[in-house]
Amino acid sequence: METQTLLRIDFNNMMAEAIGEHGITEEELASYLPMAKTAARAMVEKRPSMKWRELPHNQAEVVKQLNECAEYVRGNFDDFVVLGIGGSALGPIAVQQALNHLHYNDLPKEKRNGSRLFVEDNVDPERMNALLDVIDLERAAFNVITKSGSTSETMAQLLIVFDLLKERLGGDYASRIIATTDEHKGNLIKIAGEYNLKTFHVPDGVGGRFSELCPVGLLAAAVCGIDISALLKGAARMDEVCSEPDVYRNGAYMAALLQYISMKRGKNISVMMPYADSLKYMSDWYAQLWAESLGKRFDLSGKDVFVGQTPVKALGVTDQHSQVQLYVEGPFDKVVTFLGVDEYRSTYAIPRGFEHIPDVSFLGGHTLNELIKAEQEATEYALMRAGRPSFSITLPKVTPETIGALLYFFEVMTAFAGELLSINAFDQPGVEGGKQATYALLGKPGFDEKREELKNAPAKNPRYII
Amino acid sequence: METQTLLRIDFNNMMAEAIGEHGITEEELASYLPMAKTAARAMVEKRPSMKWRELPHNQAEVVKQLNECAEYVRGNFDDFVVLGIGGSALGPIAVQQALNHLHYNDLPKEKRNGSRLFVEDNVDPERMNALLDVIDLERAAFNVITKSGSTSETMAQLLIVFDLLKERLGGDYASRIIATTDEHKGNLIKIAGEYNLKTFHVPDGVGGRFSELCPVGLLAAAVCGIDISALLKGAARMDEVCSEPDVYRNGAYMAALLQYISMKRGKNISVMMPYADSLKYMSDWYAQLWAESLGKRFDLSGKDVFVGQTPVKALGVTDQHSQVQLYVEGPFDKVVTFLGVDEYRSTYAIPRGFEHIPDVSFLGGHTLNELIKAEQEATEYALMRAGRPSFSITLPKVTPETIGALLYFFEVMTAFAGELLSINAFDQPGVEGGKQATYALLGKPGFDEKREELKNAPAKNPRYII
Repeated sequence: METQTLLRIDFNNMMAEAIGEHGITEEELASYLPMAKTAARAMVEKRPSMKWRELPHNQAEVVKQLNECAEYVRGNFDDFVVLGIGGSALGPIAVQQALNHLHYNDLPKEKRNGSRLFVEDNVDPERMNALLDVIDLERAAFNVITKSGSTSETMAQLLIVFDLLKERLGGDYASRIIATTDEHKGNLIKIAGEYNLKTFHVPDGVGGRFSELCPVGLLAAAVCGIDISALLKGAARMDEVCSEPDVYRNGAYMAALLQYISMKRGKNISVMMPYADSLKYMSDWYAQLWAESLGKRFDLSGKDVFVGQTPVKALGVTDQHSQVQLYVEGPFDKVVTFLGVDEYRSTYAIPRGFEHIPDVSFLGGHTLNELIKAEQEATEYALMRAGRPSFSITLPKVTPETIGALLYFFEVMTAFAGELLSINAFDQPGVEGGKQATYALLGKPGFDEKREELKNAPAKNPRYII
Repeated sequence: METQTLLRIDFNNMMAEAIGEHGITEEELASYLPMAKTAARAMVEKRPSMKWRELPHNQAEVVKQLNECAEYVRGNFDDFVVLGIGGSALGPIAVQQALNHLHYNDLPKEKRNGSRLFVEDNVDPERMNALLDVIDLERAAFNVITKSGSTSETMAQLLIVFDLLKERLGGDYASRIIATTDEHKGNLIKIAGEYNLKTFHVPDGVGGRFSELCPVGLLAAAVCGIDISALLKGAARMDEVCSEPDVYRNGAYMAALLQYISMKRGKNISVMMPYADSLKYMSDWYAQLWAESLGKRFDLSGKDVFVGQTPVKALGVTDQHSQVQLYVEGPFDKVVTFLGVDEYRSTYAIPRGFEHIPDVSFLGGHTLNELIKAEQEATEYALMRAGRPSFSITLPKVTPETIGALLYFFEVMTAFAGELLSINAFDQPGVEGGKQATYALLGKPGFDEKREELKNAPAKNPRYII
């Protein structure tokens, strides 16, 4: 089967057979199958509106342009700086960490496949200053990414970079800036037109957290030498698998269903725990996807439901020494997803030594590969013995294909979970309040009312300040 | 008051006055005061066993030795590599991020205060290979940290590094390795003796997650030019504040009490959300402290309680674009702790521009400092309006003193929460199962029984593998 070469999901440790009362029985799972069938039908019916599902299939021309642009950047600039936040940043970071050298930026130029990559997803003034200490502006290109063109953080960064480049380079400065934004709407496309910026488009109907496989994520990847066609090919193959209506043959649907049942049973926390440094930031990307898509007040009928499962990022084996005590002994409130690989891309032998100390010398003759895999197996086993639900997703190896597949898998899983929860997985109305308050505080035109509201907020009680 | 110059805690948004039904009323808080009093008395009685509480006071001599050693390392080695995991890694990472340049390792040598710092807290073979690609072994020193001397991950790394250095440098290789371990017990102190390694001690009774303010954390900090005396001075001043028995005058006690009441009310998630890149990894350090200390199956009387609150790491403003949708609209299951600063260490002005686009130009003339602070205020406000509990901890500025104080604050807060929960906050029995399974899988002598157990584990059901 196609799936097996892309990824494998094992949910034995979700089941009552393995973990007892906190597990799901075969009967319970069966009772949800009609619901899953309905959701699967909805996924087919709604597919035309889920434009992100077509990204693996409809970008041949864009990929060519992206690769050309990437080659130009690689050939002309030492540093490539992404100005973006949320969906415009987490994907590029995750894919770079997965597919490039783990100390990519520290490598000498001749050992890298492209420019150094900096993803600037915060507006801390100390960080902007720190960035400028380590890049050479005259040898840097910038990719400003915001679909709406109204993301304050990103537009503030753009104002800064425009100004710096203009001062430093004079006339030609706009050639250093590549815009990725909506084709028709918003401020950035307007600016891009006026300054004749090289521009890529975020396709219609592709929201931020579902945009990694469009130019939002693909340009940075291509600049760093990643094979973006292979990424998309993996996603396309995963699309086939994820179009299977039977949950027992569709890992993304099954994973969503298992999480849905778990949520119903009070497991409000989803831990994502890769056992590979390369997959570390996949958890951050997943955390946005899962949190922002499913964390919703209203269901589709407008009823208050306040649903959502809180993603927690962990890293194996590192967080065995930080979080596993809680996972094994704390409340029965979480599902752990192990994210593993069958084969690491390199091997490291542990030499023999300290032979007179058997407590140490037993490690010699093994490899780090064996050690990390044994630890994953041991942690899965320990959680199982403690009656804690978990499932594992295993990539045969981390490659552009399997990473493309994994991204697509999580996207389908999330969309399907949205169907099961009967919520809109594609909006984020809950962030509006905070945005408006920020605008009001900074004096954006049109927010006088909010400004008044903030002024009239109840005074702080000094008794509650220590 | 002394506190105000170190940190300030504002819990208005925990209270029913501000957030309604999910808040705590003054009466409810009052009803817990007798319990808090008892816990405060226990903190005094048990202080002699909490050796970490004395670290700010009893290390004058050690600090001298650490600074001498650090100066030697700085003067002789380009790279300083910490081999450690969990409590031996998270503190060093957090303090380095807080107090040094945000791109410290990327700075040219002459602009740094010390050697580059690498903290190797995983055993991924790809990562070990990647590290060796970017450091020059002949110009590197290593600090192997494990109190017990039996941490498999760290001892495997030590075997590797011993072997590499021996091969590369011949006779003198052991001078590149500094050991930090228990003074009397364990394998590492034995090895240190045999190879005459420079050695620092983890004081008796100081457990891994409470060890940042002893040589475990202080050596790396000193090597990177951080004023470790000032760190300890801040902690010492915080000790005074945290010795106050009245929760209304002791922010650490109050924070613990508020979290305790919240846990009782089903808020099983503690989000730590700094609004400063410098404080980003403080969340990781806190995550271990809070999770491993409080995530416990048994209370002090041996009764099953399965308590604990799951820490979640977020970063402002970055995670506004990833997690805040869930925090505002999802389940009422979390308490958010904002970690802010009154004054960033640098300022960045947003230049004016795009004057014909008011949606962008309103940002010009402000500073990034104003933007990030407005966003924190706006997010606190939005959560409050949505009836979600939060409190804020504010440092006047990030300095060695305030960071030392903050570390100590969280430690006391955690210990006090342990008292309220009536559990042992200082052990971690839940990780034993996983460790033993790892040993068994790797053939460590003495684990035959576990090996048999693993062999006899129930077979996987292939129906649950997709």
